[in-house]
Amino acid sequence: MDSLNSSEPPVFADIKDAARQLNGWARRTPLLENSILNEQLGFRLIVKPECLQRTGSFKFRGAFNKISRIPEDMRGNGVVAFSSGNHAQGVAAAATLMGMKSTIIMPKDAPKAKIDNTRALGGTVVLYDRLNENREEIGERMQKEQGAILVKPYDEPLIIAGQGTIGLEISEQVEEIDAKPDAVFVPAGGGGLISGTALAISETLGCDVYSAEPETYDDHKRSLEAGSRQPVPDGAVSICDALLAPIPGELTFSLNSRLLKGGLSVSDKEVLRAMKTAMLSLKIVVEPGGAVALASALTQKIDLKGKTVVCVCSGGNADPEMLSRALSM
Amino acid sequence: MDSLNSSEPPVFADIKDAARQLNGWARRTPLLENSILNEQLGFRLIVKPECLQRTGSFKFRGAFNKISRIPEDMRGNGVVAFSSGNHAQGVAAAATLMGMKSTIIMPKDAPKAKIDNTRALGGTVVLYDRLNENREEIGERMQKEQGAILVKPYDEPLIIAGQGTIGLEISEQVEEIDAKPDAVFVPAGGGGLISGTALAISETLGCDVYSAEPETYDDHKRSLEAGSRQPVPDGAVSICDALLAPIPGELTFSLNSRLLKGGLSVSDKEVLRAMKTAMLSLKIVVEPGGAVALASALTQKIDLKGKTVVCVCSGGNADPEMLSRALSM
Repeated sequence: MDSLNSSEPPVFADIKDAARQLNGWARRTPLLENSILNEQLGFRLIVKPECLQRTGSFKFRGAFNKISRIPEDMRGNGVVAFSSGNHAQGVAAAATLMGMKSTIIMPKDAPKAKIDNTRALGGTVVLYDRLNENREEIGERMQKEQGAILVKPYDEPLIIAGQGTIGLEISEQVEEIDAKPDAVFVPAGGGGLISGTALAISETLGCDVYSAEPETYDDHKRSLEAGSRQPVPDGAVSICDALLAPIPGELTFSLNSRLLKGGLSVSDKEVLRAMKTAMLSLKIVVEPGGAVALASALTQKIDLKGKTVVCVCSGGNADPEMLSRALSM
Repeated sequence: MDSLNSSEPPVFADIKDAARQLNGWARRTPLLENSILNEQLGFRLIVKPECLQRTGSFKFRGAFNKISRIPEDMRGNGVVAFSSGNHAQGVAAAATLMGMKSTIIMPKDAPKAKIDNTRALGGTVVLYDRLNENREEIGERMQKEQGAILVKPYDEPLIIAGQGTIGLEISEQVEEIDAKPDAVFVPAGGGGLISGTALAISETLGCDVYSAEPETYDDHKRSLEAGSRQPVPDGAVSICDALLAPIPGELTFSLNSRLLKGGLSVSDKEVLRAMKTAMLSLKIVVEPGGAVALASALTQKIDLKGKTVVCVCSGGNADPEMLSRALSM
């Protein structure tokens, strides 16, 4: 993958290349587990807490992998991105680090903290109506008007490869703690994180990888079952603001349909309970969308008895009201 | 320091030795920071989150450093410890890992989660009344009756050396992120964590180290000012259940009086606000006693403008009610 604008699916070498690119910039998040929780569950639960990543989610990895490769002479017009909030922060932070301007198109109903933080990280925020406007169209229009480089949230090889460094790290870190995972659970919105992670896992650990989604936004699950990309029904709602992409990405689904074992889905209540467990047993703050994989494991959407599962907790950018709601479950 | 029962203050070599002993058993917690928070504060704030340590606090380090060195033929009668909850869990976990029984004497008003977790980690819990009974006396009595080995919470060389591995890790990890700390802030209860950390920092980074305490339990601050060990007044209360030791330890104060630059103290309200900042900006759950160093930095008890400070967040074992209270600040 030589070009900045390749549309070929990434391969494992691209993930190793992304890991080199991110070295010293992204945080190598640890693996966490709790022996008491493991005992109660009857299986070994290992968490990869990307909430501890720079900007509070995994999104910095992909954004930096793309933006840091933009040649000096193409940086003048900045970058543009559309995002519900986590990609927004990743792009704003990566652009600022590279001395570039960034314009981010965000839904009006995104958590206030995500909008505020995107601005604080140096991004110019443009708000839109998620139910009545198409963010891709707005993004492409601004890209043409400003001459800025579009940084897509997931359907782009360098983004997928950047997120895939999580899978590479998991494969290295489980060895350090003598764990042999039977499965890896990963949240899926547009599918960038899970396709990159599954690609890395398929070439290293070789264990099963499952997507995790809100039950109202289970387009990956249904698409995997149908063998083709299925959209989310109009008007669907979920507390998982980070996972509201309308349909699996083309590029990401081409990888996911080949690499994933299956799809899992959870209710809002199961998500809130998982957020509470994350706070009390793992001492980490996970946002709703970041907790769907953990929720799928805690409620054993597949039988995990005696097994070892790694769950990616993909972000932690929640408002205090949402955290209080989880704690009251 | 050859003996299991030395009463000499540890030296730097003992901390390096403890690091080798803990390798593969204790977690190497990362350093965390938030660029937006740094910008808002006007100084660089780096956190060492020991809430992510095995058992949810730094206490596992010292407990394991002591218990794992008990010779096979002395393990039969188990260990005994007195603790408000974090040392309890560290001792129970370390003893169970070494195949030993543990009896833990805990105050009746300790957070329920700490009592439950100590039992779940394999400890036998004996409850006592913190205001009317002396835990040291109970501990020594049980030690004689059962023939168990007493694992003191702080005033013991192997415990101090174990906790000091945090200072060693900080000195190595700041290099990886190109930080040059001007000061390190550390919570102080009996003084084990801070004396070990200060010992390691004095031999590596050489920067100032400050103790942090609740303002109602500011015995280290007053002892440092007076030049001799000063007790906490009778009947003092604080939400920082992990820091309610009645007076600085003898051994720990012999180190702290030589190594610390000074003592800082914070109100309960400042602690709760720091817990909220930890959740929202750093995505970690910190208990009240674990947040006093962070609270001291956030409220700039000394002028930090333009400086770099490392704060140890020493534990995260809080009940959900306390976390909700912090989030509502």
